[in-house]
Amino acid sequence: MSMTLAEIGSFLGLEYKGNSEIIIHGVNEIQNAQKNEITFIGNNKYKKYLKVTKASAVIVRKELEDQFDNLIISDDPQAAMAKISNLFLTNRGLLKREIHSKAIIDPTAKVNKNCNIGAYSVIGREVEIGDNVIIYPNVTIYDNVEIKDNCIIHAGTVIGSDGFGFTFDKNKFKKIPQLGKVIIEKDVEIGANCCIDRGSIGNTIVGEGTKIDNHVHIAHNVKIGKHCAFAGQSGIAGGAVIGGYCVFGGKVAINGHIHIGNQVKVAAMTGVTKDVKDGMTVSGIPAIPIKKYRKREAMLRKLPDIYYKMKDIIKKGKK
Amino acid sequence: MSMTLAEIGSFLGLEYKGNSEIIIHGVNEIQNAQKNEITFIGNNKYKKYLKVTKASAVIVRKELEDQFDNLIISDDPQAAMAKISNLFLTNRGLLKREIHSKAIIDPTAKVNKNCNIGAYSVIGREVEIGDNVIIYPNVTIYDNVEIKDNCIIHAGTVIGSDGFGFTFDKNKFKKIPQLGKVIIEKDVEIGANCCIDRGSIGNTIVGEGTKIDNHVHIAHNVKIGKHCAFAGQSGIAGGAVIGGYCVFGGKVAINGHIHIGNQVKVAAMTGVTKDVKDGMTVSGIPAIPIKKYRKREAMLRKLPDIYYKMKDIIKKGKK
Amino acid sequence: MSMTLAEIGSFLGLEYKGNSEIIIHGVNEIQNAQKNEITFIGNNKYKKYLKVTKASAVIVRKELEDQFDNLIISDDPQAAMAKISNLFLTNRGLLKREIHSKAIIDPTAKVNKNCNIGAYSVIGREVEIGDNVIIYPNVTIYDNVEIKDNCIIHAGTVIGSDGFGFTFDKNKFKKIPQLGKVIIEKDVEIGANCCIDRGSIGNTIVGEGTKIDNHVHIAHNVKIGKHCAFAGQSGIAGGAVIGGYCVFGGKVAINGHIHIGNQVKVAAMTGVTKDVKDGMTVSGIPAIPIKKYRKREAMLRKLPDIYYKMKDIIKKGKK
Repeated sequence: MSMTLAEIGSFLGLEYKGNSEIIIHGVNEIQNAQKNEITFIGNNKYKKYLKVTKASAVIVRKELEDQFDNLIISDDPQAAMAKISNLFLTNRGLLKREIHSKAIIDPTAKVNKNCNIGAYSVIGREVEIGDNVIIYPNVTIYDNVEIKDNCIIHAGTVIGSDGFGFTFDKNKFKKIPQLGKVIIEKDVEIGANCCIDRGSIGNTIVGEGTKIDNHVHIAHNVKIGKHCAFAGQSGIAGGAVIGGYCVFGGKVAINGHIHIGNQVKVAAMTGVTKDVKDGMTVSGIPAIPIKKYRKREAMLRKLPDIYYKMKDIIKKGKK
Repeated sequence: MSMTLAEIGSFLGLEYKGNSEIIIHGVNEIQNAQKNEITFIGNNKYKKYLKVTKASAVIVRKELEDQFDNLIISDDPQAAMAKISNLFLTNRGLLKREIHSKAIIDPTAKVNKNCNIGAYSVIGREVEIGDNVIIYPNVTIYDNVEIKDNCIIHAGTVIGSDGFGFTFDKNKFKKIPQLGKVIIEKDVEIGANCCIDRGSIGNTIVGEGTKIDNHVHIAHNVKIGKHCAFAGQSGIAGGAVIGGYCVFGGKVAINGHIHIGNQVKVAAMTGVTKDVKDGMTVSGIPAIPIKKYRKREAMLRKLPDIYYKMKDIIKKGKK
Repeated sequence: MSMTLAEIGSFLGLEYKGNSEIIIHGVNEIQNAQKNEITFIGNNKYKKYLKVTKASAVIVRKELEDQFDNLIISDDPQAAMAKISNLFLTNRGLLKREIHSKAIIDPTAKVNKNCNIGAYSVIGREVEIGDNVIIYPNVTIYDNVEIKDNCIIHAGTVIGSDGFGFTFDKNKFKKIPQLGKVIIEKDVEIGANCCIDRGSIGNTIVGEGTKIDNHVHIAHNVKIGKHCAFAGQSGIAGGAVIGGYCVFGGKVAINGHIHIGNQVKVAAMTGVTKDVKDGMTVSGIPAIPIKKYRKREAMLRKLPDIYYKMKDIIKKGKK
C-alpha cells in the first residue's frame, strides 16, 4: 500500500500542506515514525516530537500548521488517523467472522447472524446473542444472558456469574440464589477479563453503546445507562443505578444501591459512596465535587505552613 | 407456577396480610415488578418504591406493615425471598452436575463424587477435589492443589499459579521457586476471574466457609481463617495472616506479612499496612480505626475554615 | 530425599553450626515446620518463631546465629532456601515442556524450541514466540504479538486485546481501530489473569526481565523499560512510558501519557498523575515524593490538635 499526501488528504476530505507528492506507505506513533510514514498529534503532550520525528507527514490541528512541512489539517487528528490506519494495517485484528469449531454453544442458545465466537468460549443454556456480535476466545457466558446486536466481548471475560449474595445465619454464610439475568444492550464493548454478575432477582443491565475497559467488575442488579465509559479495573457494587453518558476513570469504586445521574464524571481512583446528581464531576475517597476536592488538596499542601504558624502564635501568646 | 399469597405465607411459615387469594406467578425487584409478581424490601433505600410498585405483594419487615396492601411479614425479607425465588425461577443456574467431556483432568488428580467441572477447565497433577464441588468453565487449577467439599469456583479463576517471588541479583530478578500448595477448605465460594497463588514454601490456605467475590487476588502463603467475606477486587499480599469472621469491602489492599485478627471489618478501598487487632473496624489509606478516620474526615472538611481563621489571627496580630 | 545438615551446608557452600549429622527430609515455613524439616528467616517479623518452631534446622543471617541450635548462616536466607527447596519438592510445578494437544496455534504463528503451551490456550495469527517460553492453560494471545525467549505467562492472561480507544461523535462512542502490536521482551514473567492491550498505532512494549504480578492491566501503547516489577492489580493507562528498574506496589494506577524515569519506586495504592523523575520514591493519591507524603500524614494526625488549639486562640483573642 502506498499513497501520496494529496491522495490521503483527498481520501479524508481534509486540507493538506507541503509536498503533495510525498509517498506514504505506513502509519506510526510520532516518536517512532520513520521516513514515508504518516503520524498525528492528538494530545498536545506529543507536540515536542514535531522537531525530531522522522515521519514524512503529520496530521495536526490548524494551530500547529506552521510547525511541520508536510501536513494534513484536521479538527480531530486522532479520528482522521483512525480512518486511514485501516488502509495501511490490513493484517491486524479479526479478519473474518466465524463460530470456531471449539466454541461450545448450548443447544438451547440462540446465536444470530454474522457473529464471531472464539475458540474455547462457552455459551450457556438459553443465551440469546444478536447480530454481528464478536466474542473472543476463552469467554464464559453462563445461562440466561442476553447480548444484543453489535456487541464486542474480549477474551477471558465472564458474564452471568453468580452475584456475591449471602445471608449470615448461625455463624455461617448462606448463599442467596442468584436467579436474575444479565442483559447487554446493543453496541456495547466489554474488555478482557471482566466480570458481569447476573441479578439475584431482577436483572443486571448494561445500556446501549456503553464501553467497558479490562478487569471491570459489575455486580448483581447493577443498571448502567446508555453510552457510558468505564476505564480499567473499576468496580460497581450490587444494585447501583447509573445514568447515561457517564465517564468513569480507572480503578473507580461505586458503592452498592446508590444512584448516579446522567453525564456524571468520576475521576480515576475515586470511591463514590453516595448518590451523585446529573452533570457533576467528583473525585476523592469518599467522592466529593471536584472543585471541593481541588480546594482540599490545595489546603493539604498548606497544612505544614498552617501548623508552624500556629506554633508561632502560641509561642508569642506565651511571652 | 402459580401460588396464592396464603400458600406462599404458609410455605414460608410467615404471617401474611391483605388479599390471601391473590395469585403470584413470578418474583422481581420492587422497581421493576409487575402485576402478579411478589417482591421484597431488604434495604430501606427501596421503601420509596412501595408507593409506585406494580407488584401484587411485598415481603417486608413488621415496621412497614401499614405501607402496602398485600404483605408477607418477615424479620429477614431477603432470606424469605431467596426461599421462594427458587420456586418461580426453575430454569436458572446449574441444572445438573457433570464432568464436562471437554474438561481436562490430569490422570493423577482425584475428583470425588457429585462434582461439576465445566467445559475447558483444566485440573492439574495431583489435585484433590472433594465431594459436591462445582467448578465453572475456563477455570485453571495448577498441580498440587486441594479443594475440599462443597466449594464453588466461578469461571476464569486461577488457583495455584506461582507466587510473585523474586530475588534481585546482579541487576536482574531471579525467580524463587514456588513449591507450596493451595488448600481451599470446605464450603468456600470463589468468584470469577480470581487468582489464588500457591505458597513458595508452605501453603496458601483459604479457611472453611469463606466467600470471595470476583477479581480477588490472594498471594503466596496467605492464610485466611474461617467464614470471612472478601468483596470484589480486593488483594491480599504475600504471607498475610487473617483470622476468622472478618469482612472486607471492595478494592481493599492488605500488606504482606501482617496479621489481622478475628472479626475485623475493613471498609472498601482501605489499605491495611499494619497488624489489626480482634474486633476492630478500620478505614483509610493507610488504615486507621474507623472512629479516627471519621474524625479526620470531619476535620478535613473544616480545613479551609481553619486556614482562613488562622490568616485572620495573623493579620490582627500584625496590627 | 534425605540430607544431613553438613551435606546441605556443603551443597550451598555456606557455614553451618550445631549438630552436623541431623537428618533433614523436608522444607517448610517456620511457623509450620516439623521435626526433620529445615526452614529460614527472610523477614525479621518471623524471628519470634525461633523459640517455638519444631524445625530441626534454620537458615538465618549471621546476626541470629546464637538464637537456635542447628543453623546454616547465609547473607540471603531466602535465596539459600530457594536453592535447596527444589531438592525436596520435586513434584511441584511444570515437570516437562510440551505443546498441549488442546492448545490452538494459528498456522501462521511461529513457536520456537523448548516451549510449553498449556491446554486451551489460543495463539493467534502471526504471533511469534521465542525459545523456552512457558504459557500456562487458558491464555489468549491475539494476532500479531511477539513474545521473546524465556518468558512465562500464567493462566487466564490475555495479550493483544484491543486498547480502550474511542472518539465521541454524534452522541455515541466510535471505536478507534487498535492496529499496533504487543512486544514482550525476553525474560519477562506475567502473572495470572493479566491484560496487556495492543497499541492503537505503534506498539505496547514490556521490557526485558520485567516481572508482572496477577491482575495487572497494561493499556495500549504503554512502554515499560527493563527489569521493572509490578505488584498485583496495578494498572498503567494508555501511552505511559516507564523507565528501567522501577518497582510498583500493589494496586498502583499510572495516568496515561505520562513519563516515569528509571529506578522509580511507587508505594502500593498510589495514583501517579504526573511525570516522575529518575530515582524518586512516590506515594499518595495523587502521588507526591514519599518524604512529603509522610510529613503530610504526620500533619493529618495532628489536625484535631491544630483545630482545638486554634479554637482556643480565638477564644482567648475575644476576651
